[in-house]
Amino acid sequence: MARSGIGAEVEGFHAVAAALRNGRVETLIVEKRRAERSEDVGGLVELARRDSVDVQFVDDVRSIAFTTAPQGVFARCRPLPDSDLGALIGRSTPAALVVIDHVEDNHNLGAIARSAVAAGITSLIVPTRRSAPLGSAAFKAAAGAFEHCLVSTVSSTADAVRNLKDAGVWTVGLDADGDQSLFGLDLLTEPVAIIIGAETGLGRLVRDRVDVVASIPMIGPTESLNASVAAALACFEVARVRGLA
Amino acid sequence: MARSGIGAEVEGFHAVAAALRNGRVETLIVEKRRAERSEDVGGLVELARRDSVDVQFVDDVRSIAFTTAPQGVFARCRPLPDSDLGALIGRSTPAALVVIDHVEDNHNLGAIARSAVAAGITSLIVPTRRSAPLGSAAFKAAAGAFEHCLVSTVSSTADAVRNLKDAGVWTVGLDADGDQSLFGLDLLTEPVAIIIGAETGLGRLVRDRVDVVASIPMIGPTESLNASVAAALACFEVARVRGLA
Repeated sequence: MARSGIGAEVEGFHAVAAALRNGRVETLIVEKRRAERSEDVGGLVELARRDSVDVQFVDDVRSIAFTTAPQGVFARCRPLPDSDLGALIGRSTPAALVVIDHVEDNHNLGAIARSAVAAGITSLIVPTRRSAPLGSAAFKAAAGAFEHCLVSTVSSTADAVRNLKDAGVWTVGLDADGDQSLFGLDLLTEPVAIIIGAETGLGRLVRDRVDVVASIPMIGPTESLNASVAAALACFEVARVRGLA
Repeated sequence: MARSGIGAEVEGFHAVAAALRNGRVETLIVEKRRAERSEDVGGLVELARRDSVDVQFVDDVRSIAFTTAPQGVFARCRPLPDSDLGALIGRSTPAALVVIDHVEDNHNLGAIARSAVAAGITSLIVPTRRSAPLGSAAFKAAAGAFEHCLVSTVSSTADAVRNLKDAGVWTVGLDADGDQSLFGLDLLTEPVAIIIGAETGLGRLVRDRVDVVASIPMIGPTESLNASVAAALACFEVARVRGLA
């Protein structure tokens, strides 16, 4: 049974290292063998002890892990705060947010966070329903990126879109069937939120509500991109249009 | 034991559908339950029968599949040809190729092919050593993209880089520690090959041999991108610099 709260459990080397550096690990659980043999894992133990974090050694961390490759480390943490919309919008000028419509794959959810942060977008809105949980598997795939984010969970992505519009943020839905190309979209210089759908596209209500439905142009004979790849291209496009990349 | 040859076995709905459309499926193996309940899978069976492909029904395709989610379909196929370098270079004007240095994750390998084809790059060089095999799991992740590619396997990526240079193709290695940004690189308008390293970066010999080592600029506090995400950004940059995206 997973502990509740955003990132209350974290596994995988990079994710655990980032949570430790973020000062929110309560218990670090490490495979004895790895701590002895790997300098990297040994370094995590050292860092934890320096910060008076409880360290426990086990034979095999996979019995408590959620992925098949926890890399010998697992951490129980104080959850990240669930931030409010105003904080997310105020995070950068102009505002830049990523909104997950529904992405059911843990790995994709984490990969989206990793790419968004790499592109300088650190405000994330994640739905509590029809979406992968903000748990250990997603945090591992994000390789520490969530620690740099403000995250807000919402019960309805469609309501979040309305609230963003009310707050003066342009909403751009990303969908393979979009009306126009996301590349070079002038709107991206304004306060903007990019809404990412799953492989099946945006939900109907979200699609109806966003200001623009845009797509990544397909040059070759492919129908669509993986959701996390499309998200990466979109986030870096925001950086590019803003002259940051 | 997997059959040998590029894509000799394929699983997952989109990958199997693309192999069928490519006319190279010899035996289509389908879960009875899925064929009855899913219009999509039923459509594959119909397509196979129209083309006189042998169709076999089983209770559970997972016993022969390589991934945990074969989506009820598996195909034994005539392998894709192993093409020579000249064919790959002649595929577009100016030439555009993706070279895998070493990517050990099946999913990443397939995801790179999917993104490359979406960006219009359909010439792939894949090493036979230190790389995920061109098998069922990679083909599933590519969602059919390999069927649109010319693939060449090589025993040494470093030798492939030398052969590309001898043939007048510029070689650009993608590495988190690159000397310059890949974005806006003028060289991409010339005949060019993008060499993709693994999470651990390019191999030393490859790195020494390429004309340019370039990176995707990190805007936020992230150290690196997933290899398949970096590859997608690079391939779409080629399309952009050439005025295609």
